[in-house]
Amino acid sequence: MKVPDLIRHAASDLLAEYALLIDEDRLEDWVELFDEACDYKVVTRENVEQGLPNVLIWCDNKNMLRDRIASYRNVNEYNLHWDRHVIGAPRFCAKAAGAWVIEAGYSLFQTDMEGVSRLFSVGRYRIEFAVREEAARIKSALVIADSGLIPTLLASPI
Amino acid sequence: MKVPDLIRHAASDLLAEYALLIDEDRLEDWVELFDEACDYKVVTRENVEQGLPNVLIWCDNKNMLRDRIASYRNVNEYNLHWDRHVIGAPRFCAKAAGAWVIEAGYSLFQTDMEGVSRLFSVGRYRIEFAVREEAARIKSALVIADSGLIPTLLASPI
Amino acid sequence: MKVPDLIRHAASDLLAEYALLIDEDRLEDWVELFDEACDYKVVTRENVEQGLPNVLIWCDNKNMLRDRIASYRNVNEYNLHWDRHVIGAPRFCAKAAGAWVIEAGYSLFQTDMEGVSRLFSVGRYRIEFAVREEAARIKSALVIADSGLIPTLLASPI
Repeated sequence: MKVPDLIRHAASDLLAEYALLIDEDRLEDWVELFDEACDYKVVTRENVEQGLPNVLIWCDNKNMLRDRIASYRNVNEYNLHWDRHVIGAPRFCAKAAGAWVIEAGYSLFQTDMEGVSRLFSVGRYRIEFAVREEAARIKSALVIADSGLIPTLLASPI
Repeated sequence: MKVPDLIRHAASDLLAEYALLIDEDRLEDWVELFDEACDYKVVTRENVEQGLPNVLIWCDNKNMLRDRIASYRNVNEYNLHWDRHVIGAPRFCAKAAGAWVIEAGYSLFQTDMEGVSRLFSVGRYRIEFAVREEAARIKSALVIADSGLIPTLLASPI
Repeated sequence: MKVPDLIRHAASDLLAEYALLIDEDRLEDWVELFDEACDYKVVTRENVEQGLPNVLIWCDNKNMLRDRIASYRNVNEYNLHWDRHVIGAPRFCAKAAGAWVIEAGYSLFQTDMEGVSRLFSVGRYRIEFAVREEAARIKSALVIADSGLIPTLLASPI
């Protein structure tokens, strides 16, 4: 697929910001990567492959995403872990109506307050974004986790 | 090393496809990333550093690669794990006769059917590719695994 | 942030070299990625977040870095493990006086001489570099490790 340089750079910058903002616990800034009309969903690969409709997290607009982060802050007075994402290079999948779709594998590690780091989740992102003023804005982000994950309000986004 | 943009993009796209196709269990499509005249070899780093000739997997043309995938499909009626690759940025090593050589570190995780993800292997790729019609085709892929690996027909490619 | 192509490529090549040179145990070559006037520091995230001044490793010029590698070679007659870095895409943070600052998440695995690979550390790099003759040279590298790390002469750089 022919991809303009501007889109390649925007995609790379987007994945870098997405990862680092969560890892820095700047979740409110992470929400600002999304469009007002957006969709954020976390599902397990098992569910996808078996055609089951279960979702672990689903916010179908930006206000829901804001609410979720606010709830998370409320429940977690103290930060209980640090996240660390390492994301692979993106595959450029499709272009439609000015938006691009990319997919990328991720590894997500968590470190507890004793300083012990563990693998927490691996899986794949499928992200649709549009570029405005050279910055990418997410229209939809689908996280397909290979790992089984326990749905909980306590969970930081993936 | 001076690397044309076209080659940089082709290399990034190739590594993304390589990883995602295996991880999606689309092994027949993964084979199509290779040239008819190609070489795919998996060795351990221990063997390389000690100058030993052992190889874990070796296919020295595309038909051997096809056969291997067919055997793998035959043996594994049911998928027993999911793979997930996360590959680092490539080093551009050399250019010869229209082909480029890149190296990149990888991490490979496997998730079992209980949803438990584990580190399976880390190591390095050394890939020689040529670009035709803006897509990279692999002439040789050498996988040097830091991790000790058990050679088995059951193994999916790395 | 608007980033020239040359800088994007130099940053990607720098991170690839940084990772692969350490992983290949070519530590003397890794030192050559740094400027004569340079700074290399390893700290834990816990220390940064609590505003504590502890550092695990600190070399504030290139000769100190050379000395550290020489001591490391002296103490470790035999290589006791292999490192493997996988680094994410960089965030471009700032530009000042001809130098650029990038940040990137990393995962670092170690493989022992039995061939067993384990997660060793995750964290973030903050690297300031300048580009001369199309190659990046590091002016400062700050490693903020999420993982608790034991300071030791035996440690290879991160």
